[in-house]
Order: sequence, then C-alpha cells, then structure tokens
Amino acid sequence: MNYYEKSLQAHEENKGKLEIRSKLKVTNKDELSIAYTPGVAEPCRKIHEKPEDVYKYTSKGNTVAVVSDGSAVLGLGNIGAKAAIPVMEGKAVLFKEFANVDAIPICLETQDADEIVNIVKNLAPTFGGINLEDISAPRCFEIEKRLQELVDIPVFHDDQHGTAVVVSAAAINALKVVGKSLGEIKVVINGAGAAGTAISKMLLNIGIKNVIVCDKFGALCKTDSSLSPAMRELAEMTNNNLETGSLKDVLAGADMFVGVSAPKVLTEEMIKTMAENPIVFPMANPEPEIMPDLAKNAGARIIGTGRSDFPNQINNVLAFPGIFKGALAVRASRITEEMKVAAAFALADMVKKEQLNEEYIIPSPFAEGVADVVAAAVAAAWK
Amino acid sequence: MNYYEKSLQAHEENKGKLEIRSKLKVTNKDELSIAYTPGVAEPCRKIHEKPEDVYKYTSKGNTVAVVSDGSAVLGLGNIGAKAAIPVMEGKAVLFKEFANVDAIPICLETQDADEIVNIVKNLAPTFGGINLEDISAPRCFEIEKRLQELVDIPVFHDDQHGTAVVVSAAAINALKVVGKSLGEIKVVINGAGAAGTAISKMLLNIGIKNVIVCDKFGALCKTDSSLSPAMRELAEMTNNNLETGSLKDVLAGADMFVGVSAPKVLTEEMIKTMAENPIVFPMANPEPEIMPDLAKNAGARIIGTGRSDFPNQINNVLAFPGIFKGALAVRASRITEEMKVAAAFALADMVKKEQLNEEYIIPSPFAEGVADVVAAAVAAAWK
Repeated sequence: MNYYEKSLQAHEENKGKLEIRSKLKVTNKDELSIAYTPGVAEPCRKIHEKPEDVYKYTSKGNTVAVVSDGSAVLGLGNIGAKAAIPVMEGKAVLFKEFANVDAIPICLETQDADEIVNIVKNLAPTFGGINLEDISAPRCFEIEKRLQELVDIPVFHDDQHGTAVVVSAAAINALKVVGKSLGEIKVVINGAGAAGTAISKMLLNIGIKNVIVCDKFGALCKTDSSLSPAMRELAEMTNNNLETGSLKDVLAGADMFVGVSAPKVLTEEMIKTMAENPIVFPMANPEPEIMPDLAKNAGARIIGTGRSDFPNQINNVLAFPGIFKGALAVRASRITEEMKVAAAFALADMVKKEQLNEEYIIPSPFAEGVADVVAAAVAAAWK
Repeated sequence: MNYYEKSLQAHEENKGKLEIRSKLKVTNKDELSIAYTPGVAEPCRKIHEKPEDVYKYTSKGNTVAVVSDGSAVLGLGNIGAKAAIPVMEGKAVLFKEFANVDAIPICLETQDADEIVNIVKNLAPTFGGINLEDISAPRCFEIEKRLQELVDIPVFHDDQHGTAVVVSAAAINALKVVGKSLGEIKVVINGAGAAGTAISKMLLNIGIKNVIVCDKFGALCKTDSSLSPAMRELAEMTNNNLETGSLKDVLAGADMFVGVSAPKVLTEEMIKTMAENPIVFPMANPEPEIMPDLAKNAGARIIGTGRSDFPNQINNVLAFPGIFKGALAVRASRITEEMKVAAAFALADMVKKEQLNEEYIIPSPFAEGVADVVAAAVAAAWK
C-alpha cells in the first residue's frame, strides 16, 4: 500500500485522529463533586473575580484552535470545511506529538473574511492561541491582521510564517556551507502568494538585503503601476535594484532560489546562470519546481524541498509546535517578528558546525528536542 | 477541605481538566506521512467527493461542541465566557467519562443571539452535535430553535431538555411508588425559565394532563393579557383549568411539586395542602426550595433534589451523555420529542420494580450502563 491507501485505512479504522482525554477521573460522587458541581463553582468564581486566572484553572493556556475555511488545502485547493478536517486534525496531532500542545480543529462553513474574523474573535476566550491554516490569499493576510488587532492571544497563519521560519533556518545554514553572508547575497523567490510573501519579509528580517519576488508575470517591481495593493506592498520592500523581466531574467547571478509556486518552472538552464554555489529550495508539493537530481546536474550545490524522500526537507512541523509552545509559555499576546527570527536562528543552530553539509542543513522533525529548543528561543524573544 | 477547596486545587494542579489525545502515533517518517502529508490528502479527496464520508474519516461523528456564552452559569449568573470555562470543561469530562463522547468547550465572547446563531452555524462542519449550555432565557429558546433550523446536526440545550428528561424519569417512577397514573395527577412547576419551560412541555409529552407553571408573580394563565410571548406560549399549553393566584393557591390539591426557582420558596404549610402522598422535587441548587427534612416533616412522601448528598438526585448527567451517544450513533439530524420521551422511560425502567421505593426512584449516575441504556432508547426512537 502507498501512503494514500495507508492513510485512508488509518483514518477509517480510527474514525479520525483525535479524542478528548479527561485529566480528572469521575468514578464516584466525590470525584464528580470536584470535577463538576458543586466544586466547579469555585474556579468559576475565582476567574470571574480575576480574569487572568483563566490560565491557572482551565486548559486555555495550553490549547490552540486550528482554524481553516478549507479554501486552500494542501495542493487540493478550495475543498471546503468538511474535506479540510483531516488536515486540521493532522495538524492537531502534530501539535500534541511534537510539543504536547492541545490543539482543536475548527473548520468553518463560511469563507467570508468579515465573518471569519468575527467568529474567531468570539472563540478566543477558550483558547491560548489561534493557528490559521489553509486560508487562501489575499484573504489570509487581512484575516490574520484584523484578528490579531481584536484579540489578546497570538494569531499565526502557519502557511505563511511557519514556512518562512523554516526556510530562513535553511537559508542561514546553507550560507554557512557555501561560505557566503546574509547581507551579500541575492535571493529570488518564485511565488507571491501567502508563503512567498511571508518568506520575503522574513528573509529581509534575518538580514538578507537583496530579495526579488516573482509571480507568474515576472519580477515584482515598484515601478509597475498595475500591481494590486498586496503586490505593491511586497514590491515596495523588495527588489531595490528595480530589476524587471521574467524569473529567468532575474535569476541570473542570484545566489539562492526559493520556490513556492508550481512544478517544473525552474530549469537546468536557469540554474546554470546563477552565481557560484547555487542554493535552490524548490518547495512546490508534491512535485517541486525542479526535481533534485536535475538541479544537482545543473550545478546546484545545496537543494532543499518540501518532500520527506529527499535530503533537507523544509517542513513546517519543525517550527509551529515549538513557536506556539514558547508563545503559550510566556502568554505572549502575539508572535512578533523577533520571535520568528529567534525561532529561525535556534532551528539553524540545532545543526552543529561539524555536522553541517550539503545534505544536512536542517534538523529532522524527529530530532530530539526540536520543539523545546524553538520554544525556549521564542519565549526569550517575547517582550 | 470542602468540595470548593478540593476543586480549586484539582483545577490548578491540572491546569484545567481536558487534553487532546492523538489516536495515531507520529514517531517516524512513515507515521508522519500517514497522519499528515502526503497521505492525509486522500481522506480529504474522498470527503470532497462524498461529503457524508466526513463521518467515516474524521472525528466529527463522535465530537460534540459544548457551547456557552456564560450568561447563566450554575447559580452564579452572568459571569461571562472565561469564568464559564470550568463548567464547560466539566461537561466535556462527563461526556467522555460517562459515554465516551468527545466534547469540546467553546465559550463565546458575545451574548448577542444573532451572533451566537451565526457563529455556531459556521462551526457545525467539525462537530456531530451541539450542546448549548448555561445560556440565559429567553435567548436560549430562540438560539436553539433558529440554530436547529440551520444545521443538520442535533442542537440540544441541556439546561432545558436534559433536566426535563431526568425530571420526567423521576416523575414516572415516583408515581409508580405512590400508585397514581400520569393522566390523573396535577403538577405545579415553580420557575418559568429555561428549565421550567422544558419540564412543562416534557411532562405533557409523557402523558401528564394537568400542569400549572408559576413564576414569581404566580400561576401562568392564558387569560392574563400581560404575558410575554414566551410566557404566553407556555400558558397556552398548560393550566387548562385556568387557575389563578400564587404558588400557595395553586399548589393546594396538587400531587407533585417541581421547583426550578429559588431557595426556601416552598413551605411546610404549603406541602400540607397538597393531595395525598405528595411528591416534591425542590431542585434549586445548591439550596433547594425546601430542605428535604422539612419537606418530609410536612408529609412529603417522595423527595428529589439536585443535590448529591440526599437521596433521589435529579442529575442531568443521567441524560445528556446517553442522549448524544444515541443521537450520534444513528447520525440523527435533531433530537426529537420522541427521543427525549424514550430516554425518560428508559431511565425510569433502569430502576427495577422490586428496587423502587421512596428513596430510590432514579438510578445513580454511577449505575452500570446508564448512558448505553439511554443511548439505545434514543437511537431506536429516531426516524
């Protein structure tokens, strides 16, 4: 059986992947009186008197809502709320297994941004954080921004920021291997959606100066008056040299390629025009922008993909469990740029200098203590 | 330590009462590929093709949302969303411990009926049922009714219907003990809120003909032109003999008193005016309408309260876990009157004829198999 068949079977046998566990037993009258009435009135009263005690007496402080509207699920597109549940349950499984954070899938019937903001705002009392997931661009930007202004718990769109943190960690270590510094390289990002936008911002935040973003029409440049507001914002902060043209045009001389776009858009010929020791991260999933063997043939020195069957898997699961664990530990009201940057450097530092090589720039998700290392860095960066 | 102190300690030590458990392990690449990408795409695709397969491949079919706005929590009143969480977590604990149903607390920031309806409607894809809890009257009626019209899963306001089912079971068995029949007795219900309204309707549905409801101004009677719409609806279906006056006035000659009101409103003198073999259920919590010893002194033959420290505890936990378990088993789209009536008779029948006596008219919540017996009856009554 392949993974699809095995997964279908596992989902059917278990009727989904999550269940609730009670931390208190209720097998007799005394236990019932403690877990429920009359005893439960006391923590209620305490929280009513002092609302921040909700963290002391309830599960809120370790519970994250994984919220999706099913509009951009994996590579499957807009499959709606019900069909998105297996992914959100999977996300909750990873939260629990990798960071012991309790996460609850919430798949919403509506895809209206105003409604989503209002709904999630009203769910906030129960949760310590909100992980937005698989919500299509550009709605995801607006929803995250507006929601974060309305609630006092972190709101984090993982497709954007989780990916950006792990790409940043991979970039930091890849540069160590090839002996280049963050400030001197040129990066071309192909794909100007949610992930591409977040990666661009984050690479700038870790110290890379020259970032160019391409969409399917070519390089985004602020001199182009036809850009949408979201693309304009992106163009304003990138491409300082005002390069124009296709991906092929701007990739010439670049040190790093980051793909969050579509299969086969990167060719061997294009890699051959890059600067010495090309770093390529073709992360389209399941089929990358170029297959690793072809990239290698064309001279790529370091290759990272989204796939687990090649070296250097750039996998969100390295980031989000630890990021939330750290944010929850310090009751951060948001996840700041500093916290994400700290997560990226902590993740990169998990690969020791003597271990670093072309095929090992990023830890495995199963490396001991990944979430704890990330959590500690994120917590320390909160102020 | 008393229950309040013990409960506070247990809540603090455990940081709340719930956690998530993953049914699948994720300790290596293969397991990750089955629980999450790439394998998880397959159940998503199947559900997208055939939406009812969401019950086959996800946790939806065994998961209930316990939704409150914190407006009428226990005897504590309108304490808001955060302070309500311990109760909703407690409810989820009982769902799990008594019926192996997974329940998730959702405490909403808003108390606006329109918003609550819209929010819960949009949460519905993830859940197999909605347990509304501790929402104040009369909003609870409107919210439940409108919501049930909008979703294809059961919506059940437990404060109303759970209580009504257990009171009905207690009434059925109490009448067996005193040798009276449902059709011939007169019942006075004191309290015209959510619980009083639901109990009235349900007692009529199990075959009691003469039910009179009192609020603090006295008996509800349809000849009174000053009634609110909710009170008018209640008056229309009860009090066929058009009795008027205070609780004291209408209780004279009654066979059964049901209190869902306030401490000390029932006196010994009033019980003495009831028909032979008075049945009194003073259920105000924690302090009942009359203390059981006083009621007994006044001649009450059978006494049931909401408290666990007296015989005949009329406790919702006897009903809601099994009701949802049964409804989920047959994927009922609502919980009908027939299902509630079936639950009441099944619960009553759990006390065998030879066991029945004045101090044992209703099973203990810890009696073996309560939830399964109720679930089977509820499932069989669905069509």
